[in-house]
Amino acid sequence: MRFCRFSYGGKTTWGILEDEKVQPLAGPPYYGIVKEGEPLLLADVKLVAPVEPSKIICLGLNYADHAKEMGVALPEEPVLFMKPPSSIIGPGEAIVMPDVSRRVDYEAELAVVMGKKAYKVSREKALEFVFGYTCANDVTARDLQQKDGQWTRSKSFDTFCPLGPWLETELDPSSLNIELKQNGVIKQKSNTENLIFKVPEIISFISSVMTLFPGDVILTGTPAGVGPVEPGDVLEVIIEGIGTLENRVKL
Amino acid sequence: MRFCRFSYGGKTTWGILEDEKVQPLAGPPYYGIVKEGEPLLLADVKLVAPVEPSKIICLGLNYADHAKEMGVALPEEPVLFMKPPSSIIGPGEAIVMPDVSRRVDYEAELAVVMGKKAYKVSREKALEFVFGYTCANDVTARDLQQKDGQWTRSKSFDTFCPLGPWLETELDPSSLNIELKQNGVIKQKSNTENLIFKVPEIISFISSVMTLFPGDVILTGTPAGVGPVEPGDVLEVIIEGIGTLENRVKL
Repeated sequence: MRFCRFSYGGKTTWGILEDEKVQPLAGPPYYGIVKEGEPLLLADVKLVAPVEPSKIICLGLNYADHAKEMGVALPEEPVLFMKPPSSIIGPGEAIVMPDVSRRVDYEAELAVVMGKKAYKVSREKALEFVFGYTCANDVTARDLQQKDGQWTRSKSFDTFCPLGPWLETELDPSSLNIELKQNGVIKQKSNTENLIFKVPEIISFISSVMTLFPGDVILTGTPAGVGPVEPGDVLEVIIEGIGTLENRVKL
Repeated sequence: MRFCRFSYGGKTTWGILEDEKVQPLAGPPYYGIVKEGEPLLLADVKLVAPVEPSKIICLGLNYADHAKEMGVALPEEPVLFMKPPSSIIGPGEAIVMPDVSRRVDYEAELAVVMGKKAYKVSREKALEFVFGYTCANDVTARDLQQKDGQWTRSKSFDTFCPLGPWLETELDPSSLNIELKQNGVIKQKSNTENLIFKVPEIISFISSVMTLFPGDVILTGTPAGVGPVEPGDVLEVIIEGIGTLENRVKL
């Protein structure tokens, strides 16, 4: 099933997306699917980011070809960092380039959205705690990332975490094509089977450190091909079985 | 004024703390102080962490003597990292040592709690956006911090962010004594006048990157004297004008 969040008539609501229609829900679907009100036409609503996380945990260097292009060794264990919820935008919203950076990069990633509270879960059971998947763009001020050492600032600017367009719940994350297009040209092209740490291992590892709550988001890392954006660029993150997350870049 | 959060009769509530009594409030005080119900005796309630942040932003290496003891150069700009809300515990709760670390350190810090939405605020106006201050212990798995490069994992374990015991709103943060005691012995002793980046500059800097929301927490960095903890240790973070945050360490 596909779940979305949308704004309509001044309210933001969760919904089930089917056949170009949206069935409104009473609350986040990972707490139970309770229909409320009449279906709306998708064309009449504005989709927003399909997440309300208490945290966003991200993996660095989780595709071998990207680690190579960054000139760093493959990690023995997942490298974690965080993006703040304030960095989230939805499909169609603008990525704003901060004036303190001279190089802002796109990074296409598969995002996992948790469905159940997870603490110290095994790899074998990890996927039972997932609610669904969506597309993410881990926008990064590359120059500040290099300068700071810690990646937090470079990845935390407002608008630096586009997510969407919706959550797909019936999906096997082990072998999904993932692409990034910049102004229609393919710049990143890989498959989640090339992830160094696969989704079950990622969830097991993160949950060995911290409790994951329903709605929490995990970004699984980006493949090779990262590169700079310019004002006016149209970026598309396209993941097989999910869809396309499109955002424009502006100053 | 002092504001606390407490549990009583199975509910968690904000309150005003005065003369050993707690006046319950209808909601977080930074959204407006609305009294609800009769005062309770402080002795009858259990204080919990006086925060409900959407994010916790932290500064590394913000006292010159601590940067020196870590063997690193003074930063030209604030070094930011984050701790997840899932790492928060309140006064009296136990810090749990994770089995994957062989060295867990205490770090006494002044915590700032935001009162208003802040984006790109000037140093001059920054303190107008603050609601209050409390004590923090930025517990850190020092071995994993060194190993990972990124500090997220080492600072994000559940229980690694003790905060409390309450928020003090009438406080000038520019010159406050700060101490950490381990089993009654002073291990860290400094004053916030030794901060490299002072509170107004910190808020201005962070808000130049991301929108801060009411309730968001900023940890301002730790002075020299960090060191390892052992199971059974009693740690006290003592800040002038606020009070003492006490937590025990366990396996």
